[in-house]
Amino acid sequence: MKHLTSNSQRLTGQPMFQVLARVKELQAQGKDIIRFEIGDSTLGVLDHVVQATKKALDAGYTQYVSSQGTMELRKAICDHTEKTLGWRPREAQVVIMPANAVIDTVIRCAVEPGEKVVAPDPGFPTYRAVANYYGVDMVGYRQRENNGFYVAAEDIRQLVDRNTRLLILNSPNNPTGMIMKAEAVEEVYKIADKEDMYLLSDEVYSKLVYEGQHVSPSIYDRCEERTIILNGFSKGYAMSGWRLGYAIGPEDFISKMALMFETIYSCVPPFVQMAGISALTEGRVALNAYHARLRGARDVMVEELNKLPGVKCAPPAGAIYAFADITGTGYSSEVFVRKMLEEAGVAVLPGTNFGHWGEGYVRMCFARPDSEIREGCARMQRVLG
Amino acid sequence: MKHLTSNSQRLTGQPMFQVLARVKELQAQGKDIIRFEIGDSTLGVLDHVVQATKKALDAGYTQYVSSQGTMELRKAICDHTEKTLGWRPREAQVVIMPANAVIDTVIRCAVEPGEKVVAPDPGFPTYRAVANYYGVDMVGYRQRENNGFYVAAEDIRQLVDRNTRLLILNSPNNPTGMIMKAEAVEEVYKIADKEDMYLLSDEVYSKLVYEGQHVSPSIYDRCEERTIILNGFSKGYAMSGWRLGYAIGPEDFISKMALMFETIYSCVPPFVQMAGISALTEGRVALNAYHARLRGARDVMVEELNKLPGVKCAPPAGAIYAFADITGTGYSSEVFVRKMLEEAGVAVLPGTNFGHWGEGYVRMCFARPDSEIREGCARMQRVLG
Repeated sequence: MKHLTSNSQRLTGQPMFQVLARVKELQAQGKDIIRFEIGDSTLGVLDHVVQATKKALDAGYTQYVSSQGTMELRKAICDHTEKTLGWRPREAQVVIMPANAVIDTVIRCAVEPGEKVVAPDPGFPTYRAVANYYGVDMVGYRQRENNGFYVAAEDIRQLVDRNTRLLILNSPNNPTGMIMKAEAVEEVYKIADKEDMYLLSDEVYSKLVYEGQHVSPSIYDRCEERTIILNGFSKGYAMSGWRLGYAIGPEDFISKMALMFETIYSCVPPFVQMAGISALTEGRVALNAYHARLRGARDVMVEELNKLPGVKCAPPAGAIYAFADITGTGYSSEVFVRKMLEEAGVAVLPGTNFGHWGEGYVRMCFARPDSEIREGCARMQRVLG
Repeated sequence: MKHLTSNSQRLTGQPMFQVLARVKELQAQGKDIIRFEIGDSTLGVLDHVVQATKKALDAGYTQYVSSQGTMELRKAICDHTEKTLGWRPREAQVVIMPANAVIDTVIRCAVEPGEKVVAPDPGFPTYRAVANYYGVDMVGYRQRENNGFYVAAEDIRQLVDRNTRLLILNSPNNPTGMIMKAEAVEEVYKIADKEDMYLLSDEVYSKLVYEGQHVSPSIYDRCEERTIILNGFSKGYAMSGWRLGYAIGPEDFISKMALMFETIYSCVPPFVQMAGISALTEGRVALNAYHARLRGARDVMVEELNKLPGVKCAPPAGAIYAFADITGTGYSSEVFVRKMLEEAGVAVLPGTNFGHWGEGYVRMCFARPDSEIREGCARMQRVLG
């Protein structure tokens, strides 16, 4: 093998793909696998979003546009932010790119290799994957189930040192579904403020709240000082295949992110940006119905999981995942996952994919038809029972 | 301003955006500007590509897919490569991502900060923009007009040292339109082979050949050793807004690129990938008509430019740009560009946007209706006349 850079040697990819690869092998052998592993809704897409994309294609939204995103979509995002968070960013504070690219560009603009990021554990694996390849030190703050997976500001404070440049919050959380309490958000903002760090608030599940209320740390600085909001359309609007997201942050920081995106990508397809406008402004009834289906699916999955011997699952307050405690089965996360996949034909993810503190848990996406959830849990019952 | 990383401080963006920004200001003042600056066709899109995108949206190609690209599109690319270059890559040698992302990931996988890339001057600004922000040393090899802008292998040999990891070829070339001769391609391949470097062959204009023949260095190693082909749909298929491209290279290298793309982007929208299949396999008649229009537009632009006092332009053998020598006007590239924009209402790019050796030239995209080309040149005539 020829010379490869140290950055590329440190690329690990999403650990989920190990389960995914085995799922594909089994499917190729003709096995019927019920798939709860991917965080992608199979409840169908919103028709008005598809129609808006097609309309934009017909109308000629098919050329290069601004790397920072079209003014129309940025304006729609400002309107939406005002409606949902109670304050209005300026268009210059908004940049359009996929959510993964936001994580990558935020880390690369805010943190030098060798410096430190503090992020949730268990948490979204891309935080760690980016930090890792880029040579940044990522330290996880624990979400404890005996405390409802709530983030304790004190746990974060203990990890922050002079070398820490960026603090990541993710509420509602993937994989735990936890929604941070308003007091904790305030305390964490104060830590970031005191230490003069950037604060990346990953709010991609903020539309998907079943209990309690989503609070954004941006209420404290309106993204003028340190808060960078990450949001996207994949989860809240069932638009994973569009690869559309955005960041809101301090204007100088956002313009660096846009410049990086211009350099490595040029722009998001304009017809995809038109779909984003449709998602934010049209089809309220269809969107509410979609969210109600997700809530119903959550209830079904939690109920079915709690019937399984050795499995306990508290209802997640937000997002699209059940994060079930499987320690009562006597299996480790990895063994449980292998057993379910090979013997029950059910794909779930080990909690360890989300960090050290994920041991003893598995993540299952409930954005599935109820019948599939019931059938998957029945299969698991036969193996565990 | 808060702490920003050294990488982000070195981001320069595309120099073209300075002209672009002034164009928008003038347009906002109600001025009518004829725009030859952007390398984006305004001759319309291919209808079958639009229809294929819409069909894919209706058929539900709207979820996450493999980061390396769908097997269907990779297979179509293998078929296409066999037809056009005479050898067939394996699907595992192909990764799907936008062309800009190919440049970024190739440089970041092949070259460490502080190491060296050798690339054409004048040449596509993204090579330099990526090298720059990433802290890589980029050295330009000169394309001399008195030699038809041909690349002389000797010029490259002199720049290569032990610190050089990557050599970039771009034929047909942006901005000169030069197509490398077969012997030069062979000689350059031998240099890369002898020094055991990677060779990035940017072939995004390989469909757009008016004279001579495009030769790919991949014929020497079938992308198994060192050649990495970069290709895309923006130029050859008028699909700039789809942001679709691909790389073909050694399997271990491609899998690192795919892993990097997975980490920073996840995947290209599946309905966009379906559009790529349509471009490669359907609508031959429409595509040929499009290419014939480009050839006609080239002839018109070259003829009109050569009527202007002090301007000389040889017909480009490929790509979509006239690269005109304006030294006879007595103006520098920058002054010429400003004069044309402010006094003639015509936007062109200074050759210096493409490197040190671009002084004395301007680049004009001829993928425009003939009438627009004639009108633009007439306006320039009035100012220069």
